[in-house]
Amino acid sequence: MRSDCPVNYGLEIFGDKWSLLIIRDLMLFGKRTYGEFLCSKEGISTNILASRLAFLEKEKIVTKARDPQHKQKWIYSLTEKGIDLLPVVINIGLWAEKYAPKLNPNRDIIIGAVKKHYGRGIAAIRKKLYSQHIKKQGTNQFK
Amino acid sequence: MRSDCPVNYGLEIFGDKWSLLIIRDLMLFGKRTYGEFLCSKEGISTNILASRLAFLEKEKIVTKARDPQHKQKWIYSLTEKGIDLLPVVINIGLWAEKYAPKLNPNRDIIIGAVKKHYGRGIAAIRKKLYSQHIKKQGTNQFK
Repeated sequence: MRSDCPVNYGLEIFGDKWSLLIIRDLMLFGKRTYGEFLCSKEGISTNILASRLAFLEKEKIVTKARDPQHKQKWIYSLTEKGIDLLPVVINIGLWAEKYAPKLNPNRDIIIGAVKKHYGRGIAAIRKKLYSQHIKKQGTNQFK
Repeated sequence: MRSDCPVNYGLEIFGDKWSLLIIRDLMLFGKRTYGEFLCSKEGISTNILASRLAFLEKEKIVTKARDPQHKQKWIYSLTEKGIDLLPVVINIGLWAEKYAPKLNPNRDIIIGAVKKHYGRGIAAIRKKLYSQHIKKQGTNQFK
C-alpha cells in the first residue's frame, strides 16, 4: 500500500482501466464469461484479462463457479464488494456522457435512469445485480 | 478511442491511478503546485507527474496560471470538467472506507459529510472547489 488514503487504497485495487472495464462488463453489459469479456470492443488481451480476473477474484470483487450447463466453463459473478463499485462506474459514465455526449446511444437507458433520479436509479441497478449475481446460489443464478 | 462506451471514454482520460491521485490532491488535499503533488505520500515520480499534468491540462481537466506571488511558479486549478469528477473520487473513497475501514483517520471529515447526506455533502465540496478553483480569476483565486 503506497499510503493510508482511501482513494489510493481503491485505486491500488481497481484503478486500472482494464479492471474497471471488466467490472463494467459484469455490471452493465451482462457479460459473465472469459470469452464474453474477451470480445469486448476495447480488445483486452488474453494475458491482461486472465491476470485482472485472478486479481479481482483474489480481492473478492468477483467470484467464479462452474457453469452448470457446461462444466468446463467458468461463470463470473460480482460479490457485494464488487456491486458496491456501481456508483464509481456510473459516475464515470455520467461524467463522460456530459463531456462526450455523442458516445454510447445504447447506454442512454442506464445513464438516463440514473440522471433522472440518482439515488433511485442506482438502487434499481443494484437490486438487479444482487438478484443476478448474489441471490439464489442455485440453478437460476446465471439466468 | 478504443470503443464508444462512455465508461471507456472516461477511463481513457483519467483511468490511470496517478491521474486520479493528482485530481484527488487538488480536490481533497488543497494541493495546487508541482512541488506539492510531488510530496504526496504515494511517491509519484517527476516524469509521471509532468506527463500526467500535461495530459490533464490538454484534456481541460486542469488549468495552470503563474503564481502572482512567485512568478516562476505555476498554480494548478481544476476546471469545471475537473470538478465534475468529484463524485468519481468521492465514491472511490466511500467504497474504500467500507472495505478498509482502518485507513485514513484524517479523511473522515470529508467522507463523513458525504456519508451523512450524499447529495448535500457533494454539493458542499463542489461549492468550495468552485470558489477556490474557478470563481474570482484574480488575486484571491489561490487563497
